[in-house]
Amino acid sequence: MIQNMTENQITLHIIKTLKENKKKEFETILDELQPYDIAQIYEDLPEKHKTRFLIFMNVDRLADLIQELSKEDQLEVLNKLGIEKTGKVLDLMDNDDLALLLDDLSPEKIASLLSGMKKSESQAVQDIMNYPPETAGRLMTNRFVWIRDYYTVMDAVGKLKSFVEFAETINYLYVIDQDRKLVGVVSYRDLLIAEPNELIKNIMYERVISVTVTTDQEEVARLIERYDFLAIPVVSEENVLMGIATVDDIIDVVIQEANEDFEKISATGKSIDFETKAFVAAYRRLPWLILLLFIGILSGSIISGFEETLQKVVALAFFMPMIAGMTGNTGTQSLAVVVRGLVSNDLDKKAVFRLIMREFGVSLIIGLICGILIFLIAYFWQDNAILGAVVGVSLFLTLIIGTLAGTIIPLVLYRFKVDPAVASGPLITTLNDIFSLVTYFGIATMFIKHLM
Amino acid sequence: MIQNMTENQITLHIIKTLKENKKKEFETILDELQPYDIAQIYEDLPEKHKTRFLIFMNVDRLADLIQELSKEDQLEVLNKLGIEKTGKVLDLMDNDDLALLLDDLSPEKIASLLSGMKKSESQAVQDIMNYPPETAGRLMTNRFVWIRDYYTVMDAVGKLKSFVEFAETINYLYVIDQDRKLVGVVSYRDLLIAEPNELIKNIMYERVISVTVTTDQEEVARLIERYDFLAIPVVSEENVLMGIATVDDIIDVVIQEANEDFEKISATGKSIDFETKAFVAAYRRLPWLILLLFIGILSGSIISGFEETLQKVVALAFFMPMIAGMTGNTGTQSLAVVVRGLVSNDLDKKAVFRLIMREFGVSLIIGLICGILIFLIAYFWQDNAILGAVVGVSLFLTLIIGTLAGTIIPLVLYRFKVDPAVASGPLITTLNDIFSLVTYFGIATMFIKHLM
Repeated sequence: MIQNMTENQITLHIIKTLKENKKKEFETILDELQPYDIAQIYEDLPEKHKTRFLIFMNVDRLADLIQELSKEDQLEVLNKLGIEKTGKVLDLMDNDDLALLLDDLSPEKIASLLSGMKKSESQAVQDIMNYPPETAGRLMTNRFVWIRDYYTVMDAVGKLKSFVEFAETINYLYVIDQDRKLVGVVSYRDLLIAEPNELIKNIMYERVISVTVTTDQEEVARLIERYDFLAIPVVSEENVLMGIATVDDIIDVVIQEANEDFEKISATGKSIDFETKAFVAAYRRLPWLILLLFIGILSGSIISGFEETLQKVVALAFFMPMIAGMTGNTGTQSLAVVVRGLVSNDLDKKAVFRLIMREFGVSLIIGLICGILIFLIAYFWQDNAILGAVVGVSLFLTLIIGTLAGTIIPLVLYRFKVDPAVASGPLITTLNDIFSLVTYFGIATMFIKHLM
Repeated sequence: MIQNMTENQITLHIIKTLKENKKKEFETILDELQPYDIAQIYEDLPEKHKTRFLIFMNVDRLADLIQELSKEDQLEVLNKLGIEKTGKVLDLMDNDDLALLLDDLSPEKIASLLSGMKKSESQAVQDIMNYPPETAGRLMTNRFVWIRDYYTVMDAVGKLKSFVEFAETINYLYVIDQDRKLVGVVSYRDLLIAEPNELIKNIMYERVISVTVTTDQEEVARLIERYDFLAIPVVSEENVLMGIATVDDIIDVVIQEANEDFEKISATGKSIDFETKAFVAAYRRLPWLILLLFIGILSGSIISGFEETLQKVVALAFFMPMIAGMTGNTGTQSLAVVVRGLVSNDLDKKAVFRLIMREFGVSLIIGLICGILIFLIAYFWQDNAILGAVVGVSLFLTLIIGTLAGTIIPLVLYRFKVDPAVASGPLITTLNDIFSLVTYFGIATMFIKHLM
């Protein structure tokens, strides 16, 4: 009955049921909605209706709702609910989401929130929060169904049925031995095709792809993407099954990592989004800009070193922005290729060598073409062949230097386990500014006699 | 038995079975491997073993293998297989993957490949290929299980069992009416909990989230990410169920879109990866560089317009790179915030206004701080307060202009349905070069008397 309504119509409809205190009708509406939609509606709801909206919802639904809200709203909702109901709701939340919510709250706040929870659940959350950030341990949920290797297919399906409400995803059943070590996996499909009294150990995959609690989340994402898994088991160093990381969390990881690379290459400063306040955004962006300011002064002092040359041939200044700009850009281009390339490729010595040679080849080609082009332009514009040659040769050389810098610097950083993206656009650009100015004015000074 | 072997050990083991012609043993090994691993092994295999490797595999496995290979390898394998077996294999491939493989092959090649296939299958693929690139129609697979609304849970499970081999993902069953219109969805979980003779129409969700065949793949990804779906149904304009888009394809989309944004902001040029040949890479990067070269000349001619000023006060040249560089960078920072922000936010007028005001605030703060800083530096370095003031005021103004340009330009492009990322780093940078040079030398010229 509501399936063809717009979100606004539904919201109005819900407000009506709240005003008229029609709990039944309210619930039939919510039955048809996805948690994300319910969250949207809650956020749009006039303040005065929010409390009753929450009261009308059962704890299961509250748990689903909360996972879709922003951190501020999450805490606001929990406050509205009061300690006791809060505990019930937190028990039902996926612990990875809960860990995220608790992250960087004050210890007191965390304690008070956990106090209302079941011992087992709150323990599980605290365990998760003990793993380093951006690892599989932080991502994993303990809401999965395990079975023992001696089960029959029938047993497995039985257990599945009884846990179906609890499990976050139920596409794979992970098989463990008496020491809770991961020994196999069976998918839903396998269960459906198999004979009811077939033994699990006979139909299970034994070569399980798994990650450990300390595996970096980027690596987890890479595996899930490669194998098109819907979930991947997370084990301890001793191969004891600790939890599973699910594909929906992985999509968030992929987006997050992409944004991080993006922020770094554009030196945006950490996580500035549409909601960030101006002061915060400025504070996060300033360090980079101030660093650039000083590097800019450095290039300035280099130029001042060539003041005489510049004094004699002011025309040299005309080509400065072009040479610096293009050198910086070719560097950023190479950097981008390397940084994003590392997302899906693992690098061995051979690959690195091939990549550097490739980029060297690229730089020769673009250097030659752009060098000749600018020679002609400078020649006809300033009617000075020597000047044209100086500019052309400089551009040729700086494009090669710039390209190699943009390739080698991130590779070296990567080799030393530093995120290559921190060699971000502006840094490469500015390094290349300096290279290019020295090269350009150096050559110009050599030929200064012929230039005048 | 092989579960603890490294990939190399397994490869050697497989070569052994190939040499000794032990098909049974060969198959028991492959039973334990994921398609991705099989593909890796195939690629590492010495040329002389590849053919037998393929002969030993049944068509199902070949279909899985091919989907994991690079395009070149895919075609090579198909050639080795010969028309008849090729047809069988292509029949078994997911049509979205197959469409990808056929994409940009010659019409003759496509025809000859499809010739061996079942009419129904080859038709399905050609249909997919008729949808515009990067739409849901291109992503979707027709390997899903639909049920009718009058089915009972038992009927549904029955149909599921018979199609389990065929379906790509079997997490949701989509419910259609007599006109094949999508009317509902039931998940596996629902089926497991429900009574066997309950009617599907009573347990199904009626408010199905779906996309149409022409929906942009970024939008599809956004929905799947929001709702944490494992698949989303794709319907025609008339709401007829055409196929499903699955989460594994969506992860690839997210990565691809991130890389595209990244390529654009760094003006890398389309899809250059570690494998791209130097000539191709250079060819793809050149257009940008040549464009930049001419814009660079433009800035040059601007400077030449101020030749007199520069002649009189060469020191002005010292601060040129710093001002241009920082203005360009603050623009790129804002651009990055906007471009990545649009990945997860939808923009309404209010949001746009808030964002612009925010960035304006940011630009005031950073402009003020950096302006004062450079005033002091220039003052003490060149021992000339007027010069310091000129540089400081210029930087203050250009940082404001640069930040707003980096914010507004992508928003305008987005408004006019142009991908904002094409206003890529270098473009903003160069525009800002020009702004900043004009501002800088303009102000300098005004105060030229006091500068000398």
